[in-house]
Amino acid sequence: MELARPSGVVTLTTDFGTADPYVGVMKGMVLRAHPRASLVDLCHQVPPQAVPVAAWMLAAAVDRFPAGTVHVAVVDPGVGTGRRSLAVYAHDCYWVGPDNGVFTALFAAGGRWQARCLEVEQFGIPHLSRTFHGRDLYAPVAGWLAGARYGFHSMGPRLQDPVRCAALTDGPPRVIHVDHYGNLVTNLAAGAGPCRQVSIAGRTVPVLGTYGEVEPGCLLALVNSYGLLEVALRDGSAARTLGVGVGTPVQPMEHTP
Amino acid sequence: MELARPSGVVTLTTDFGTADPYVGVMKGMVLRAHPRASLVDLCHQVPPQAVPVAAWMLAAAVDRFPAGTVHVAVVDPGVGTGRRSLAVYAHDCYWVGPDNGVFTALFAAGGRWQARCLEVEQFGIPHLSRTFHGRDLYAPVAGWLAGARYGFHSMGPRLQDPVRCAALTDGPPRVIHVDHYGNLVTNLAAGAGPCRQVSIAGRTVPVLGTYGEVEPGCLLALVNSYGLLEVALRDGSAARTLGVGVGTPVQPMEHTP
Amino acid sequence: MELARPSGVVTLTTDFGTADPYVGVMKGMVLRAHPRASLVDLCHQVPPQAVPVAAWMLAAAVDRFPAGTVHVAVVDPGVGTGRRSLAVYAHDCYWVGPDNGVFTALFAAGGRWQARCLEVEQFGIPHLSRTFHGRDLYAPVAGWLAGARYGFHSMGPRLQDPVRCAALTDGPPRVIHVDHYGNLVTNLAAGAGPCRQVSIAGRTVPVLGTYGEVEPGCLLALVNSYGLLEVALRDGSAARTLGVGVGTPVQPMEHTP
Repeated sequence: MELARPSGVVTLTTDFGTADPYVGVMKGMVLRAHPRASLVDLCHQVPPQAVPVAAWMLAAAVDRFPAGTVHVAVVDPGVGTGRRSLAVYAHDCYWVGPDNGVFTALFAAGGRWQARCLEVEQFGIPHLSRTFHGRDLYAPVAGWLAGARYGFHSMGPRLQDPVRCAALTDGPPRVIHVDHYGNLVTNLAAGAGPCRQVSIAGRTVPVLGTYGEVEPGCLLALVNSYGLLEVALRDGSAARTLGVGVGTPVQPMEHTP
Repeated sequence: MELARPSGVVTLTTDFGTADPYVGVMKGMVLRAHPRASLVDLCHQVPPQAVPVAAWMLAAAVDRFPAGTVHVAVVDPGVGTGRRSLAVYAHDCYWVGPDNGVFTALFAAGGRWQARCLEVEQFGIPHLSRTFHGRDLYAPVAGWLAGARYGFHSMGPRLQDPVRCAALTDGPPRVIHVDHYGNLVTNLAAGAGPCRQVSIAGRTVPVLGTYGEVEPGCLLALVNSYGLLEVALRDGSAARTLGVGVGTPVQPMEHTP
Repeated sequence: MELARPSGVVTLTTDFGTADPYVGVMKGMVLRAHPRASLVDLCHQVPPQAVPVAAWMLAAAVDRFPAGTVHVAVVDPGVGTGRRSLAVYAHDCYWVGPDNGVFTALFAAGGRWQARCLEVEQFGIPHLSRTFHGRDLYAPVAGWLAGARYGFHSMGPRLQDPVRCAALTDGPPRVIHVDHYGNLVTNLAAGAGPCRQVSIAGRTVPVLGTYGEVEPGCLLALVNSYGLLEVALRDGSAARTLGVGVGTPVQPMEHTP
C-alpha cells in the first residue's frame, strides 16, 4: 500500500463546541509540531460523546480533501482509560484519534485501509494528561504526520481489529440527523430504488430533484449532499413544521398511488 | 480594467451554521483546487436563505482583505434550478456564488465591476449535485481563481444584468440587524445629518461617540463599525432591555429639544 | 530579554460571537498587514465584556503555541475612550489588545514580561474608528508583528503599570466556568492538597483520575485540562443534572469520611 505524501492540511472534528479554547489550543499544538500546517475545522458540534455521529461526519470528508490530509477526530469519552489510540491510512488520507469506533466508516468491507496502534511512549510527550489527549497526543501526532517528522509506519504496531461502532445509517428507516436548516436527514440511501414518495409524521412527501421545485412553505424530499434522502421544507424548517426529530420513522413508498 | 493578482486568500460566507461539516467540506474542495489557499470564515450565521443579509455582510468585507482575495458566498435557495452562477471582479477582489442578488452591493451605480457567468461545462466537474453547488462548483472555482489555474476572463461570458436584491438598508428607518451583543443596528447612515438623538420604543437616546460615554446600563446610539447608527446598552443588551428586534422603527431627531 | 522570532501564527480571542462578520473582518486586516499569517481562533464566546474570563482563557494558550506567536485579545468595553493599548512580550509570545486587565495572567509575580504602550499615531492608520479597534488597530499591529514589519520595541514606550483585573480563580471555592459539556470548572487548583472528595449542591463527589472511572450517569470530580478541579457527569451534563452554574460554592474535603 503506497501512502500519499502529507499535504500539510490537518482537519479537526470534535464534540468540543465553541464556548472554550479547547479547539484553539489543539491547533496550537498542531502548529508547534508543524508550523506550516493548514488547519480546517470539519465540525465541532458533534453531540457530546456521540461517536456514531462523528463517524458519519468523517465519512463526508472522504474524497473532499487533498490526498495526504491528516484528519483528527476527538470524540473521546474513554480518554485516560485503557482504550487504544489509532493512526489509520485510508482513502489517500491519514486519520488520528481514539480507537472507539469513530473511524468505523473507513473499515468498510472490501476497503483498503491500514491501522497502527499509537505507541505513545516513543513520542516523549512531557505531560500526557488523563483528560485531554486531543491536545496532548493527537494534535502533536497529526502535526508530525503532516510535516513528515514521523512516518505513518513508525507510529506503532499494526492493528487488525480496530473497534467499530454501529453505523448511524444502520437500522430501520428513520431520521438520523437534523441539520442547521431543520432538514430531516434520513438513513435511506440515494440508490435504494425508485422511491417517488416518502411518508413521515402522517404526511406524504414527493421525492424531487432540488428545493426550488416546490413553492415556499411546501414539503419535499430529495437526495442530499450526503447521498441520503432528506425531507425538507422550502425556505423553512421541516423539523419545526412537522414537530419531529432524530429517530422519527420514515417510510419510502415505491409507487405513486 | 486591470485585475489584482490573486492573494491566495479565500473567504466563505454562508447560511450553513456550524452543526454540520458543510463548511469544512467546502474548504477541503478549495484546498484540492489550490493547496496553499489561506481560508477565512466571514460569517456562517446568515439567517437561512436571507440573501439581503448576506449581501450586506459581504459589503463589510470590501477594503478589509488583501487585493486579489476570492470571496465565496453561498446563500443559495435556488440551487439546482436554472439560476446562473457568477464570478465578479470588484473592489480589487474576486467574488464567486449564485446569481441571486447576493452580490448586489458590488453593483452600485458608478462602481467599477465586471461579472462573468460561470460556464460550468468547461470545468469538467465529475459529479455536480443539485443541492450543494458550494461544494461542487463554487469552492473549486474559488480555488482555481486563488491559485491562478483559471483566469477570471476564462470563467465564462460577460454578464451585464446580474440579479440584484433590495438592499437591507433600503426602506423606512428601522432596526435591520441585532448583533451578538444585542446592539440594534439601524439603516440610518453615518453621514445622514446632524442627528443628536434617536427615538426607539418610546425612548429617546443620545447619539454619542463610543460606548464608554454613558454609565453601565444606560442606552446610547453611535455610529458603529458598519458606518451605521446603532442603539446600544453599555455593558448589556439593548435588544433584550427594550424588548425589540429586526424591523422595529427608529426615528432620528435632528434637534435637541 | 531576548525575543522569539515571529512564527507567523496569529490567534484571536474576542467576545464577538459568530453571528457577525466582525472576526472575519479582523482576519482580513491581519492578512493585509501580513499576507502569509496563519490565523487561529482561540475563543470568540467570551461572555460580553467579561475581561476576567478572557484573561483566564488566554492563560490556557501559554506554552500551547509556537514561540513567536502573536495573540490578539479584543474584549474591549472601553474602546474609543482614553484607555491605553498594549503590546506585551511574555512566555515567548507577543500579546496585543487593550490595557484593561485582559493580560493579567501574564504579569504574575516573578514572571518575565515586557509591556509597550501602543503609540497609535506612528502607524498612520487612515480611519481609526471609535468602536472597533480590533479591526482598525490590533489586527494590523498583530500582522505587522507577525510579519516583522514593526519590531516589538518600536511599538511604543515601555509601560510598567499595566491594568490588572482580579483573577477568575481568586476568591472562595466555587464554580467559575461551565464548559460545553456542562462540566463545572472550579477554582480549586490541582496541587491544592490531597483532596479526595468535593461537596457541591448537597452532593459528595469522589475525586478520580478520568471520566471513564465511573458508570455513565454518575458524578465525579477530576483535575481537568486547565489544571483545575472540575465536577463532571459521565456522558452527561453536571450543570443540568445538579441545576447549578457559575458561582455555586464547592467544598474540598481532605479526608474520606
